[in-house]
Parts: sequence; C-alpha cells; structure tokens
Amino acid sequence: MSELGVTVSKREEFGEWYIQVVLKSNILDYAPVKGFIVLKPYGYAIWERLREIADRRFKETGHQNAFLPTLIPESLLSKEAEHFEGFKPEVFWVTHAGNNQLGERLALRPTSETLAYEIFAKWVRSYRDLPLKINFWNTALRAEIKSTKPLIRTSEFLWQEGHTVHASREEAEQEAMMMLSIYREVMEEYLAIPVIAGYKSEREKFVGADYTLTLEALMPDGRALQMGTSHNLGQNFSRPFNIRFLDRDGREQYAWQTSWGISWRLIGAVVMVHGDDKGLVLPPRIAPIQVIIIPIFYDSDKDAVLDKCRRIYTLLRERFRVHLDDREEYTPGYKFNDWELKGVPLRVEVGPRDVKQGKAVLARRDTGSKAVVGDEGLLDMVEEVLEDIQHSLYSRAQEFLRSHTFHADSYDEFKAHIEHGFVKAYWCGSGECEARMKEETGADIRVIPFDQEDVAKDGSCIYCGKGAKSIAYFARAY
Amino acid sequence: MSELGVTVSKREEFGEWYIQVVLKSNILDYAPVKGFIVLKPYGYAIWERLREIADRRFKETGHQNAFLPTLIPESLLSKEAEHFEGFKPEVFWVTHAGNNQLGERLALRPTSETLAYEIFAKWVRSYRDLPLKINFWNTALRAEIKSTKPLIRTSEFLWQEGHTVHASREEAEQEAMMMLSIYREVMEEYLAIPVIAGYKSEREKFVGADYTLTLEALMPDGRALQMGTSHNLGQNFSRPFNIRFLDRDGREQYAWQTSWGISWRLIGAVVMVHGDDKGLVLPPRIAPIQVIIIPIFYDSDKDAVLDKCRRIYTLLRERFRVHLDDREEYTPGYKFNDWELKGVPLRVEVGPRDVKQGKAVLARRDTGSKAVVGDEGLLDMVEEVLEDIQHSLYSRAQEFLRSHTFHADSYDEFKAHIEHGFVKAYWCGSGECEARMKEETGADIRVIPFDQEDVAKDGSCIYCGKGAKSIAYFARAY
Repeated sequence: MSELGVTVSKREEFGEWYIQVVLKSNILDYAPVKGFIVLKPYGYAIWERLREIADRRFKETGHQNAFLPTLIPESLLSKEAEHFEGFKPEVFWVTHAGNNQLGERLALRPTSETLAYEIFAKWVRSYRDLPLKINFWNTALRAEIKSTKPLIRTSEFLWQEGHTVHASREEAEQEAMMMLSIYREVMEEYLAIPVIAGYKSEREKFVGADYTLTLEALMPDGRALQMGTSHNLGQNFSRPFNIRFLDRDGREQYAWQTSWGISWRLIGAVVMVHGDDKGLVLPPRIAPIQVIIIPIFYDSDKDAVLDKCRRIYTLLRERFRVHLDDREEYTPGYKFNDWELKGVPLRVEVGPRDVKQGKAVLARRDTGSKAVVGDEGLLDMVEEVLEDIQHSLYSRAQEFLRSHTFHADSYDEFKAHIEHGFVKAYWCGSGECEARMKEETGADIRVIPFDQEDVAKDGSCIYCGKGAKSIAYFARAY
Repeated sequence: MSELGVTVSKREEFGEWYIQVVLKSNILDYAPVKGFIVLKPYGYAIWERLREIADRRFKETGHQNAFLPTLIPESLLSKEAEHFEGFKPEVFWVTHAGNNQLGERLALRPTSETLAYEIFAKWVRSYRDLPLKINFWNTALRAEIKSTKPLIRTSEFLWQEGHTVHASREEAEQEAMMMLSIYREVMEEYLAIPVIAGYKSEREKFVGADYTLTLEALMPDGRALQMGTSHNLGQNFSRPFNIRFLDRDGREQYAWQTSWGISWRLIGAVVMVHGDDKGLVLPPRIAPIQVIIIPIFYDSDKDAVLDKCRRIYTLLRERFRVHLDDREEYTPGYKFNDWELKGVPLRVEVGPRDVKQGKAVLARRDTGSKAVVGDEGLLDMVEEVLEDIQHSLYSRAQEFLRSHTFHADSYDEFKAHIEHGFVKAYWCGSGECEARMKEETGADIRVIPFDQEDVAKDGSCIYCGKGAKSIAYFARAY
C-alpha cells in the first residue's frame, strides 16, 4: 500500500492507526502550537452535519442559541470555589492587551457557567422569564499538559454548551435527563455508536454539579470514551451568582439550573469505532458525502460513461449527498483508494459495459461487497443499501460492546477483564474503594447505569466486600 | 412611553437611540469585561440568518468551511512585518497556562492570515491543489482601547474570514472581486442597505495587502460605515510563509492569495439604517420572525379567536418565519409594542369581528399602515406585503444615500458638506493630502469607487489643487 493510505493495522497498532486515519483522510492537521489541531474542510463538514442534527433537536425542544465572549475575568471564574479549583490548573490566562498589562487577568473560557450565570442573573426576574434555555456553539480552551490526542483530548475543542435556568428542582431534573436522551439519540441513531447511560460517581462528576449524567461508549482497544454529559447544577451556581426569581406566589427563590455538552470528540469516536485498515468508515447519516460516483473509461468510451455518471448524479442528488469524481488526472484505482480512505459509505462505479447494459456497480464501504444494479432500480437500491449500512454499523458496534462487557464477581476476575472492556461489578458507593481501584488497575467508574435491574439484593462491593449500593461500569478511559 | 420602549428620538439623539434599541430589542447585552458584548438569542437569530445566507453563497462558489485554533504564536504573527505592526497594539496576549509561564507568548487571533498560511504551505504542493478556497466562521479579538460601540466596534466580534490560494495573479484578482460582489448582494438584497463599491486608498488598505476592495454604507448621522472588505494579498504572504506550488510546466512558483471578511457589524448597520423611534425595523429577508400573529379577545371570544390564529399560523408557516404570541399574561397593546420594538416586519391582528367576517388585519412595521384582508387572500397578501417592505426599505435607504452624497468643487464646499454625508471630490492620489484632510476635518477617503465615469479629464485635487488621479468618497467614519 502506498504511503497515501493507512500503513498499519487497526488491530495491531490502534494508536498509530488512529493518527494515520485522522490525518490521511483529511479530517484534520496539527496546528503550530502543541496540543492544538486544525479541522480541515472534510473534518469540518462532518462537524457541520453533527451540529445540524443536534441543533435541530435543541431548537425543537425549546432552546435558543446565543453568543458569549471568549474571555472571563478571574474574579468571576473564581466565584464558585469548587468549580474554579477544578479548572484552574488548565486555564489559559490573558495578561496583556498590546503593551498594556491588564488590571485583572482574563481566562480563556474553559467552560462558560460563570460568565453565563453572571449575565443570566440580570435576565431573570420572575417566573415569566423561566425556563431560560440557551445554547452556545463555540470552543472551550483547556491547556492539556499530559497526553493529547487529536479530537479526543486537545487544548481547544469545538463543542456546544447548553445552559438552562428553571423554576423548580423537578424541571431542572427533567431537562438534564431530556438532553441526555437527545444526545443518546444523536450517538446511536446518527453516529451508530451504542452508549451506556447513567450517573457519574461523586468523584467523577462535574465540579459544581449536584450530579452528572453521562453516556459512555467502548472503543475497540477496550477503553471507554465519555461521549457527552448533562449536569444538574441544583442551586450551586444560582446562589453565588444570585439568580433569583419571583414565583407565582410572589416569593423570591433561587433558580435551578442545568448545563450539558458534546464536542468534536464524537468525530474521534466515529473514527475509532467504525474505521478499518483502509481508513475511515462513515455512517451514512453523518457522512458529508454519502455516495461517490466514479467513471471508468478508455478514451473511446469517455463521453458515454461521463454522460451516464452525470445522469446518475442528477438522479441521486435529490435524495442524497452525492459527489461525482470526474477528475482526469487520477486513475479509477487511485480514486477508489482515496474515497475508501475518506470513508464514503457507498461507491457507484460506471464503466462502458454498464452503459451498454443499462447497469451500474454498487460497492459498500463497510463490507467491501459489490452488487450490479439495473438503472431503473438504482435510486431505491441506493436508499436501501445506505440504510442497511447505517444499521449494520450500529449492530456491529453493539455486538462489540456486548462481547466486551464483563461481569466480575471477584477482584481477580475484575483485574483479568479490565483491559479488554467494561467490567460490571458491585460497588459499595465509597470514593475510597473507587480511588484505590483506579490506582491499582488504572480503571475507574465510568457510569452507574440507570438500568440497575440485575443487581442482586445481597451483592457485595467488588473491592471491600461490604454491602453494595449499586452496580457500576468500570473501565480504563481516554 | 414606558421605559420598556425607546425613550429618545433617532433624529435628535442618534447615539443614545442606537444603544437603547440594541439593548431593549433584546439583540445584545453588555458583558462583564468592558468592550465585550453578549449576543442574546434574538440577536443571535439574526446572525444565524445572515450566516446562512452568506454561507450558502460561499459554498455555491466553491468555498469550504474549516476550523483554526484561537491562539497564534508570536513568532508566527510577526512573520509578515507590516501586518504585525498593524495589529500589534491591539493583540491580547496569553502568557500563562495554569501556573506555568509559557515559553512563547500566544496571541488571541486578531485575524488568521498568519496561522492559516503557515498551514496552507503544507497543503499546497502542485497546481492540482489549487485553488484552495477556505472560510472560517469564528471570532476575532482586538483590544479596543478608544471608544467602543456594540456590534460596530467591540473587542471581540463574530465574523467570517475567507482565505484563498491561487495559481495566478488574475485568478486571485477575480476571486477578490467575486467575493466583494457576493457581499454586495447580501447587503443590498437581504439587508436592504445600498453600498458604494471600490478601492481603499493605500493609507486605509489592509496591512499586508496589495490592495483592498471595500463596500461602504452611509448611516443616518452622516457617518460612513465600512461594511465588508476583500483583499488581494498578491504574493505578500506566500513569500514569507513559503506557499509554493509546481505549475503545469513543472516550475515552482509562489502562490497568489486573497482574504475577505464580514462581521456582526452588519447587524449594527441594519439597526442604524432601518430603525425608528419605536425601535428595530428588520428587512423581511433577514428577520428571524417575519410575521407575528396577535390574538385580541375577551373571555367569551377566546376560543374562536385563538382557533383562527392557529389556523393562520399553520397556513403561514409553510412559507414564512411566523410566530403566534398567545401569552396570556400580556395585553395585546403590550405585545404590539414589544414586537414593534423587535422590528418584526408584519403583524397580523385577529379579533372577534375578524372571526365573524372572515378577515384579519395586517399592520406594517415600516409605515405603520394597516389593511383588512379576507381569509382567502391572506397568504398571497402576506407574501406581497413582505416583498414590498423589503423593497421600500431599500428604496428609502437609497434615497437617503443619494440625498446625502455631495459633490464638492472647493475645499470650503467640502468642509460645509462633510458632516452631513459622503462628499465626492477629486483627489491627486497623495497620502499626504489625505492625512491633512483627515486632521483638519475628521474625514478620510472611505472608497475610491469603481465607477469613475463622471471624472472630468482636467479635475484637480480638492486639497492641493494638483491634477486629480481619481474621484473619491470622503466621510467621517465609525
């Protein structure tokens, strides 16, 4: 294989394979500052699809977008002490404007709770102003000192952060849960990645939240990836930021809040979960190009083949995101490799024989299988095959998750399984057990699943043996 | 008028009027750091419309979006010396990450030429990689030390910056011109603001450009506003950044480049140009809500009136961006004022009599005129009236521009007219004349129009009396 393509196997060198795929498929490039990346047009097109899908669901559920500045004064960022302590080690600080030293340092937004809530306090006066449900599509900046990994862990990342204010605890709880279910829908139905939904432990929750809801996926190397989180902030921020409202009875109350976010990390997850040794494999619903048409001809057949390709292009573009690769400076073989590397779900090949016989060849990116289709059936067949690819990618990922989720009844079993995937085990609820297991095995509690059905009444903690409070998913994580 | 509404007249206190309108119509709010603003959901919805319109045109003309980090190392920003000198006084500098001082200061992007071109140099190898046409929707940060004005001059602003690389000088020239014409289309056909197109003088061009194309509009206070610029960068950046390509003949050449941008300043222009003493007036093509439906009823008629409103809503939403204000805690009068303040182009009023008679009342925001329309004609009438509002806002602005553009044949005439609008005058082409006029009158050359038809062969410079090279538009500017 030429150096244009991926030169290592996903199974054998997963880390290196990932880097090669994201660089060579033209998703991204490194930026001059360590830990930062550039999203190239192809990668950004995937982000635009993801944003469009999520944004539509946010708006359907009553959220509106807005804009906040990048810079947050230190005094504001430190107003909720626990929150500030959590982010402080990774904050980028602006100290000068031109040649002038600033009176107060300004933080580059690591997340916008503090800035948003300082402003929300001015906007909220009465129950009539509630709920306030606002989303921001922007970037967050957090200096990653340890290991960085493109899309998964970078010092600046594209994301959205939703921030809501409610008149009751119940409404905030419902909002946090609703957003988690919208995220889950995006991940499972569009990205074709199954996730485990539930709570973060106290130790892993968002700094400043009452509790954090999370969605966790399993990557092919057996490590877990946090895909998105939704926080019930209770009144933890409304008190220091003084977000109060007059309720229907004329009483003044502190408001109840949530915040939630997903980032371009989800693109990284798609690469890891679905990609193969030829490169990227994109689920059709998220692919910027769903169908690539490639003409195959000698000089004598050129016009007829290109004509047919253009007709197919016109036919398909009504329903699909389709591209005709009619570049003359590249061979069909080169193009096959190029679009396979970029993960386009379906290829339509048209040669002179296909013109004569009124047919075309469909080649699936996920399985590599080919089928010959008559012209009259092409449109429906493309639709059917794309749907099938979408579902079979999900099924494969689901099967992987199932076969790499282990039950452990002893700590020895736990240690034997932990490097291969999720381990479900009883847990007493103590942060100390959690911390010790992390130290000894590198794994921590990724999620305490909503689904606690299979908890035995008399289960005992996998670490200390005391009575279990719940069952939890443990894993090593990105 | 209550303090909810605008309390000063546009004609008498233009500056204060502008601030009241942008704050009270819920476009924006001040941020905690001086010079920064927050875009509220209503203002952001206008930005989303503007972005959608421009983005579609960018993509239709072969541009793709991408993402660049916010931070640029000082060594990179200073690589093109003239460019760096221009931006240096207003750069925000990051010096620390957490508690660690950085080895090199990082600039918050004042504009991305240097960062983009450092990276483009890696992407461009041969003529096959060209043209490279990339756009970034992001924010730029420039510390505004002097006066700030929301949307017009702020230390951080939402904008787009396009950056292209071409194989020839001619292609770069065409690109710069094409983008200017797309901007013009957005401003005139969507924002209903007429603009003067042409060149910036050497003194006013973008630092680092061969030349800058500009679009300039006239605000109601007689001051000019730069609406958008498009720069032909020649090889000024490709040389220091080493962007070279192999041409078709196998020779290595430096590439030719352009960059261009528009920002949320355009929203400020819409407020200034079209607003009135009641608040905002939005051109229908840019309005987030084009039609507001307001039910008017007593308790006995409530169901019938609301039913009819909902039918109208369902009818109109197929073609327009429409909202039904069925809030029960506010009176119709309050709602009238509220939506007038927000500049919604057309109001549909429905009362009990309208239900009985099969009619509705349409009220135009721009003229205040009302018309009664039968149900069967409603949909077409709404379409017609919205079109008419769009065109009549443009005509009014055009008439203002015409009547506030003056010819000056002497420097005395120049000084008499300059505080009322544009002054067209002959100019010798010397930066010295330009600088002196600026010093003496506060006005400079906003644009040297493409249209030089009315230049007399023997015109002489308005300032020094020497032979004129061109006619120019002078004005005081924002």
